[in-house]
Amino acid sequence: MHAITIDDPGGPDALVWAEVPDPSPAAGEVVVEVTAAAVNRADVMQRQGHYPPPPGAPPYPGLECSGVISAIGAGVTGHHVGERVCALLSGGGYAEQVAVPAGQLLPIPQQMSVQEAAALPEVACTVWSNVVDIARLRKGETLLVHGGGGGIGTFAIQLGKALGATVLVTAREAKHDQLRVLGADLTIDYTAADFVTETQRATDGRGVDVILDIIGAKYLDRNVAALAPDGRIAIIGLQGGRRGELDLGALMAKRGSVSATTLRARPAADKARIVKGVRERVWPLVDAGAIRPIIDRTFPMAQAPAAHRLMESSDHLGKILLLP
Amino acid sequence: MHAITIDDPGGPDALVWAEVPDPSPAAGEVVVEVTAAAVNRADVMQRQGHYPPPPGAPPYPGLECSGVISAIGAGVTGHHVGERVCALLSGGGYAEQVAVPAGQLLPIPQQMSVQEAAALPEVACTVWSNVVDIARLRKGETLLVHGGGGGIGTFAIQLGKALGATVLVTAREAKHDQLRVLGADLTIDYTAADFVTETQRATDGRGVDVILDIIGAKYLDRNVAALAPDGRIAIIGLQGGRRGELDLGALMAKRGSVSATTLRARPAADKARIVKGVRERVWPLVDAGAIRPIIDRTFPMAQAPAAHRLMESSDHLGKILLLP
Repeated sequence: MHAITIDDPGGPDALVWAEVPDPSPAAGEVVVEVTAAAVNRADVMQRQGHYPPPPGAPPYPGLECSGVISAIGAGVTGHHVGERVCALLSGGGYAEQVAVPAGQLLPIPQQMSVQEAAALPEVACTVWSNVVDIARLRKGETLLVHGGGGGIGTFAIQLGKALGATVLVTAREAKHDQLRVLGADLTIDYTAADFVTETQRATDGRGVDVILDIIGAKYLDRNVAALAPDGRIAIIGLQGGRRGELDLGALMAKRGSVSATTLRARPAADKARIVKGVRERVWPLVDAGAIRPIIDRTFPMAQAPAAHRLMESSDHLGKILLLP
Repeated sequence: MHAITIDDPGGPDALVWAEVPDPSPAAGEVVVEVTAAAVNRADVMQRQGHYPPPPGAPPYPGLECSGVISAIGAGVTGHHVGERVCALLSGGGYAEQVAVPAGQLLPIPQQMSVQEAAALPEVACTVWSNVVDIARLRKGETLLVHGGGGGIGTFAIQLGKALGATVLVTAREAKHDQLRVLGADLTIDYTAADFVTETQRATDGRGVDVILDIIGAKYLDRNVAALAPDGRIAIIGLQGGRRGELDLGALMAKRGSVSATTLRARPAADKARIVKGVRERVWPLVDAGAIRPIIDRTFPMAQAPAAHRLMESSDHLGKILLLP
């Protein structure tokens, strides 16, 4: 088969579409013939050499895909060759085929093409595990989403609204109209306004209950300042650095908490638990049309360098797909 | 009645036993004739002028007591004058009488004197809400308790063991034998050994699942270093300062979380929820003898200054009681 290889980590042109060995399914795995894969920021870090695949994962980038099952490994039940699926991956989505543990498969949602479904697994699992499983967002609470215009952000807006929360987002102004159509109750241009001031104003000074954050250190003190009593900050990216001062007195005055997670490094059993939660709690909302995949553009997979340039420009809204 | 008043915040002699007006029960409250009150570190901060009582709380120190109900306010059901109780307070325990919302009352555990029961409400509610409700300690996990020799620590050791956890503690060496009798699996002399090294050794390099911390900033980076994957740090005191650098990359690599709370500032409804959880989940363990109050010494309440000197020396093991 072909896959995107990274022999020499660096800029976008490090991504090379090359002939590689076909995967075969280990026990508990299936092989998926890839219809589409989606681009995540972690793929950019992997391309740059900063985010090596976890042990046992394919060496190629790609944390989610959709396609058709082409082979079934020992011990897998409940799946068949020819079945249309999408999947959360530990890597290897940028390829014509990928082996994946059966516990990380999800059905294609109703009234959705196989190709579109590639946009969902990673964002659905990341947002659900952080906003619901860890931060326990409840109906009537307020959710602040940083980076509301990306794949994670556009999904988080829709999930937050579907769960009955008020959703505030930070994003570039050019994306605001579309994010309000998705359900955002307030859009904050982080280049022109202070999100602490804006969120305090929007909540009558109470603050926000849950923050989904991709920035990290640079926003740490302001995220604490924006929190409501009993608020939870769920950090899933460190685009603004890793080391920051935390004022524990301010956090304690709010009875707040800060969590930091990544999905990729979780053990397979933990990924399967999250995928099961998503299937049971999130997929019905997708089937009902309350949450839809937001896809900015598609590229032929051999043009992965152009897809990464778009991701790094942050000019996209929603997901970027690659088609082998 | 008499109560300990603080006209001039400062050293232990700021605590003056003086004649004050009797309390009367507001709607939803009862008045308790105090048999014993217990000393908490927050009382020392209040005496120093650093921790004013929350709005609506009595001005006198004292966050827990035991005694006999002497009056019942409007709308209180299920309680009667003459009933023996212990109670979580927002203040006012250092007195002959105190008014308390009925939701903060707990029964005197079986086979326990009214006096002994004064040692339990604040530590039981603090430890339960942090270790179980927030940090979700599970059977088979490892709990690290900083300050294992205090009232919180001696209770946390027993609760951790009763829940099926392995319990590691930091404490002065003089207290180690007694803490092992209470159930501590490993006692670490923090003056002579690095707790990160010791906890990593005791867990085969895996780290600890939950940390109950009273130190704050000074321990923040080492607490993260001591965490196991998916570990939770629950901070309930800032004896080592409030501002510390947090390495979010290290926290993320462990999928860790940091919470910081105090019990006193919680709204009454939240305190009632916690007291209910303690009555349902912790009191049966106390009734069964799996958890017992650890009382270092009792003082006549007029000698509160001497009790505070002992608390500040940290020479005590367990709780210090005051008897009006």
